[in-house]
Order: sequence, then structure tokens, then C-alpha cells
Amino acid sequence: MVRNLRKLLRLPPGPVVLDGYDPRATPGAPGGKERTKAALATDGPLLADLQERLYAEANTQEGPRSDRRLLLVLQGMDTSGKDGTVKHVIGAMDPQGSAITSFKAPTEEELAHDFLWRIRNRLPGAGLVGIFNRSHYEDVVIVRVHDLVSPQVWGGRYDQINAFEAELTAAGLTIVKVFLNISYEEQRRRLLARLDDPRKHWKFNPADLTERRHWSAYQLAYEAALERCNTDTAPWYVVPADRKWYRNWAVGRLLIETLTEMKPAFPQPDLDLPVLRAELTPPA
Amino acid sequence: MVRNLRKLLRLPPGPVVLDGYDPRATPGAPGGKERTKAALATDGPLLADLQERLYAEANTQEGPRSDRRLLLVLQGMDTSGKDGTVKHVIGAMDPQGSAITSFKAPTEEELAHDFLWRIRNRLPGAGLVGIFNRSHYEDVVIVRVHDLVSPQVWGGRYDQINAFEAELTAAGLTIVKVFLNISYEEQRRRLLARLDDPRKHWKFNPADLTERRHWSAYQLAYEAALERCNTDTAPWYVVPADRKWYRNWAVGRLLIETLTEMKPAFPQPDLDLPVLRAELTPPA
Repeated sequence: MVRNLRKLLRLPPGPVVLDGYDPRATPGAPGGKERTKAALATDGPLLADLQERLYAEANTQEGPRSDRRLLLVLQGMDTSGKDGTVKHVIGAMDPQGSAITSFKAPTEEELAHDFLWRIRNRLPGAGLVGIFNRSHYEDVVIVRVHDLVSPQVWGGRYDQINAFEAELTAAGLTIVKVFLNISYEEQRRRLLARLDDPRKHWKFNPADLTERRHWSAYQLAYEAALERCNTDTAPWYVVPADRKWYRNWAVGRLLIETLTEMKPAFPQPDLDLPVLRAELTPPA
Repeated sequence: MVRNLRKLLRLPPGPVVLDGYDPRATPGAPGGKERTKAALATDGPLLADLQERLYAEANTQEGPRSDRRLLLVLQGMDTSGKDGTVKHVIGAMDPQGSAITSFKAPTEEELAHDFLWRIRNRLPGAGLVGIFNRSHYEDVVIVRVHDLVSPQVWGGRYDQINAFEAELTAAGLTIVKVFLNISYEEQRRRLLARLDDPRKHWKFNPADLTERRHWSAYQLAYEAALERCNTDTAPWYVVPADRKWYRNWAVGRLLIETLTEMKPAFPQPDLDLPVLRAELTPPA
């Protein structure tokens, strides 16, 4: 078992060239497909236990409450597996301990505010694991590819994002940012697979094919976002995502390692056990 | 396997006397503990499939979208297993397809509005399965036990709730209301178990013991709520909850039966498959 997957997948500082990252690689995996899937199954209860401790810290009935919380930011091209990751990794946790937000095209109300307004509104509360399926990074990626705002505006956002994330970490939030890295070829296969399966036709948007023509522009925009917002407090991890089993295992591991480092512990409130037990024990 | 658990657990019309319902009973269960747990494990994927269809209906990229959604309302005394039910039953579904709200004591902002304001704010959107861990029924139960509002006020709420729920069902919401029925003795065991396990001390609130002294008043308030708000559009189910394995299986089954009756289907949008496939097929 890998000892430090975060070290292996952490984006190094400096210029980012996504072509240098193999989307089919499986760094640190405990083995091939079957062995890695088995490891993910074992990791589920581990992740659930860590999450329960984090939740308990913030929700103890007696004694001081922690304000720590965790945020997983998932970004990646269409079909890179953001939904699948949520299902297979977050699905292992108690649903009451997590808070998932899928950010879509902004509404009129959202557009009437600063781009971080809707993000701030959905931050996880104390003790929760938040998951952002897309995030504020769309505001330096899709807007750049499609010229939705001026270069002056999106150009200023990298520093704004860094300041925002620094503020949040100072306030008890631990941020894990994951870029799911799939290949152009794998996206083709996945889009075709949607066409081949009538159960998946509802997911197919012909506009995805138009977006696909902008592949290079998206990669460029992602490279800038990864490079400019790769801070020590909120680092980026590049997860090879052509193999779903690796992707699921790796994201689960990144969360486990991060939570393990946080050392969440079940609170030990000062309960008067003998008195409380006596009240609950029926007379003999 | 039971064919119609809803029929077995549906609260009959008329006066409700909770003493007449055995919290240790296991009506319709496929067997004892092991067999019933195995059945729940089999039911998980079934529930996930139905949920995916409901979600797909409302989120198809092309073609008309459905506005149907499902709401599970969970009520019950302290320790009756609301949290555990969410974990074990809702945990089987794709976390992105469900929306869980745990209603706590109302905030000042919530109290400044009508009691249904915060409820309406948290209703599931189209295609989602919403879960209310506690709900507007607290506003005819705890407020009655503790005289938090006048009898004129809480007395008027039963009809207001019925009107509210009728309006929601007319707008595409299917409501499943579950009362988790545990015994006074089982609550005692569960509170003691929390004291015996240091991992559970954070859940222990000495005030729970004070609440326990109001057991009869709570039962009475629940009987009134169940009786007055037991409508055909939003019926109550009384689930015996002393045995956790039965409770989990039964709630899962109620959801499966309800969703099956809704017959959610994967949308078949009018996609031009040959053209779309051609665009995704590389030249030979």
C-alpha cells in the first residue's frame, strides 16, 4: 500500500503542461483493476470512520465544539468522472456527514453577485465534508474559453481565488482540489458509450460535442488555473482518470490521507456517568 | 418476499393508540435478522436504480423534463433511529440524487416566519429524493409537549399541514411519512449503550433524560399528529423500530414500493444517433 499518495499526485510548483501527465497511469495503486477495487472497498469504512469523527467533533452535545471541515473540489473535462467519483467515493460516507453541491451555469441571481458569492453560500458547515462538483474554477476556465467575461476580469480572479481559499483555510477549512485528468481519446469513448446505452441517453447533450472542439482551449485554461492557484494551503492534485477504478481509489485515498493528518477524535465530554447510568437503571 | 409492505404498515384511519403497535414486531420481514439484512443488501441496488431513473427523468439534456420528486419524512422519539435509517437506507442511493435535511430547534430567522417556511425552503427539487430528519411535525409535537405555542396555534396546524401536503402532492411531490416506533424500554437500552461506548459519548445529551420524563406526553402528541394528518395523499406508516435491522429493511421497502408505483423511466430523447456517432468516430 502506498504511504503517501498526496506526495505522488501533488502538482509541483511552476508551469503546468497537462500533456506531461499520463491519464492512463496508476501511480501508487495497490495493483491492477481487481486489487485496486478491493482496496477501495476496504477504504470505504476507513473513510466513514474518519468522517464520523470529524462530524462528532463539531456536533458534541456537551463540551467545546470544533469548527473544522473538509472541502473536496472536483474539476475536470466533461465525462472526466466527477459524478462517478461522488457516487463511489462519497457514497461510502454517512450521507448526513457530507454536503454535495453541483454547480451549473450561474442563475441570474448568482450572476448579479460576485463570482464567489454562490460558492461561499455552499461551503460546508463545521464537521462536514463538502464536495463541489465543479466550483469557482469554472469562473477562470469556461468563461475564458468562451469569452464570457473580459480578460481583465478573469485575469484578476486567480489572485482573488487564492485570497479566498487562504481565508477559508484560516477559518478551519481544509481544501483538497482534484483535477480529474482524462484524455481526448477517453472522452470520445465515453461519449460514444452514452450513445450506445439507452439508459444513458438522458445524459447526452449534443452541445457536448461542440464543447469538445474547444478541447485545447480548455486544457490551456486549466493549465493556467492549476498553475496560478496551486498554493500550499490549497494544493492541486492531478488524478489520472482514464481508468475509473484508479480514479475512485485515488480520490478516496487523498481524502483518507488528508483526514488522517487532521486527526479527528471522538470528543470525550465530561459526563457524570454514574449519575446518568443510575437514572437509566430501573430499580431492582 | 412481502408483496405490499405499505398495506401492512399503513396507519388505518381513525383514532390512534400507539400502545396497540408492538415496536418489536417485524411484519412482512423476509425472515429473521440475518435474512432480513441480506434482503436489505439486495434492495440497495434496486433503490439506487429507481432513484437514478427518477433523477434522469428530471435532468435529461434533451426533451421534456419531469417535475416528480419524492419526500421521506422521518419522525420518532429520541434514539428511535432516524440517523441510522438515513445512513443505512439513503446511503444505498447516489448521494447526488438525494437531499437530506436535519431540522433542529428553529433559528431566530426561522421563528420570525410561519412554521412551514423553513420546511418549504428545503423541499427536494425535481428528480430528487428528499429526506426530512424531523420535520414540520415537530411543530405539533414538541411545541405541544412543552407549551411553546398556545393550543390555539398548534391546534390549527394539523389542517394547515394537510393543506400544505395536499398542495405539494398536486405539484409533483410524493410524500412518504414514517413514524419510527420504539419502546420506552428500548430507548433506555440505547441511551445506556451511548454511555457505555466512549465513541458515542458525543451524542449524549443529559437533557435527553429530561425529555424522557415526558415520554407519555410525547406519545399523546404523536398520536394526535398521526391521526389528524393521515391523509390518502400523504399517509403515515408506523414502522416498528426496536429492531434496527427490521427498521432499515422496512423503510427501504416502503421507498422501493412507492418508487416502483411511480414507474420512473429513463428518458428516450430524440437523438440523431448516426450523426452523433459519426462525429465521434475517427476517420479510418
